[in-house]
Amino acid sequence: MSFADHIRACNNYDPARVVPLVAGERRIGLLRRDNAAALARFPAVFAVAPDRVHLVARGDVDAVSAAVDEVVEALVVENRVPKWRNETFDIAPRWGEAPVFRLDRGAVAFFGARAYGVDLNGYRRDRRGLQLWVGRRAPDKRLAPNKLDNLVAGGIGNGYGVAATLAKEAEEEAGIPASLIERAVPVGAITYLMENEIGIRDGVLFVYDLELPAEFVPQNRDGEVVHFELMPAASVIERIRATDDFKFDVNLVFLHFALRHGLLGIDDPEYLDVASGLHRPLD
Amino acid sequence: MSFADHIRACNNYDPARVVPLVAGERRIGLLRRDNAAALARFPAVFAVAPDRVHLVARGDVDAVSAAVDEVVEALVVENRVPKWRNETFDIAPRWGEAPVFRLDRGAVAFFGARAYGVDLNGYRRDRRGLQLWVGRRAPDKRLAPNKLDNLVAGGIGNGYGVAATLAKEAEEEAGIPASLIERAVPVGAITYLMENEIGIRDGVLFVYDLELPAEFVPQNRDGEVVHFELMPAASVIERIRATDDFKFDVNLVFLHFALRHGLLGIDDPEYLDVASGLHRPLD
Repeated sequence: MSFADHIRACNNYDPARVVPLVAGERRIGLLRRDNAAALARFPAVFAVAPDRVHLVARGDVDAVSAAVDEVVEALVVENRVPKWRNETFDIAPRWGEAPVFRLDRGAVAFFGARAYGVDLNGYRRDRRGLQLWVGRRAPDKRLAPNKLDNLVAGGIGNGYGVAATLAKEAEEEAGIPASLIERAVPVGAITYLMENEIGIRDGVLFVYDLELPAEFVPQNRDGEVVHFELMPAASVIERIRATDDFKFDVNLVFLHFALRHGLLGIDDPEYLDVASGLHRPLD
Repeated sequence: MSFADHIRACNNYDPARVVPLVAGERRIGLLRRDNAAALARFPAVFAVAPDRVHLVARGDVDAVSAAVDEVVEALVVENRVPKWRNETFDIAPRWGEAPVFRLDRGAVAFFGARAYGVDLNGYRRDRRGLQLWVGRRAPDKRLAPNKLDNLVAGGIGNGYGVAATLAKEAEEEAGIPASLIERAVPVGAITYLMENEIGIRDGVLFVYDLELPAEFVPQNRDGEVVHFELMPAASVIERIRATDDFKFDVNLVFLHFALRHGLLGIDDPEYLDVASGLHRPLD
């Protein structure tokens, strides 16, 4: 393994395998060609052309969401989309714009819609240097079971903002109270584009750092993390270099932390791969 | 102006206007088509094809450098390349690889060779918050005269490493002694690809942060900076948003600082433009 392997794994997107999903003239997703073909039997909702798929369902956000949802139900029956999670994401051409529709979280990668999340690095400084809190994902997680993870991470669901998602996930996943999470500092975003089993993961992670007091010990409340461990940050980075123990995109988040905190030496042979590989330009 | 305008200005590269310069099978530059055409009369050094230009001069690094240098002399006479600066850059397919030849700094953009530099954010914290040292470039600088600049910045010349360049420029440009510059922390790199008057600027900036003591006052020693000023970091960022007062790529370096230090709010409408716009992927 190498740092570049992790970056490549999250950026294995191949434009030749994909057609855009458009609403009007705006792109709202990236459909793998097999997924595009599977939409051809829903002509009231999607018009499938060789070079693109148009969303043709009409009406307000509720009406379009309901029309797409019927398609998603059929895709679930066909095992093209995993059982949904009763959590919807807003689908829009760009962050901050009004949503065109709401989509079940389980179907987001099928349509290659951009998915936004938050990720929190919880760290503390002691005489041994920087320490990072690392969690282990529960064995029943659908995505990346048993993998090592950041202290707090979660998708930004419909109706939640970035800060509200962070506060909610911080409380549920790690028992971080509101009085503590409000000290978290936004430090950038990571962007990547990855083909997975379902389709295309167009990922945007808003990253926060939170320096935690020595007496703080995280406590999981939603069953998604089996335990937390405080690890020397330098050990986390060397474990990322050598193993596949961390969830795919968490490798990128910790490398971003390492860069910003001077944990990667300028003479590291992968320095520029890391420094230039965590922020795929958004269109 | 906006943050995105500055990012776009540094990434106005259009692949349709350019052909690769290759050595063997490896790309070592990006030639604007008019520049490629101008090389056709040096067939012993460059073989110009419609879709690429091959470096055909043979021999060791010294021999190839001398052959290219003769071409550069002719280009200077034709005013295609500015008068050179007696400083050469190592030209290689990738950072860390052995150089194919050395090239006069003035000609680097003509060939679209990747140019590496260092950039130092010098800051201090006081009761008013984060303060940044900002310099004003001398009126006789060839590039971006009179523009505002970072505390220390410089190109990485042939034979110098990153840290050695930083130490040298820190002493010459701002009077920062070795005992202080060794505390500078590497915090990432900025990458951009820009067409300018001469050709293509394929820029990589290694970025450092240095927290400076209250008693430190920079002193320029090489005449390249007319004065330094300590400014509130928040004012620097708002001035970048509103004006074109800073050198083109310095806008990106200070935006990178702002992101990492939590000076950009997550609700800033340009947050994702900045977070995803400072690190063009390297090939």
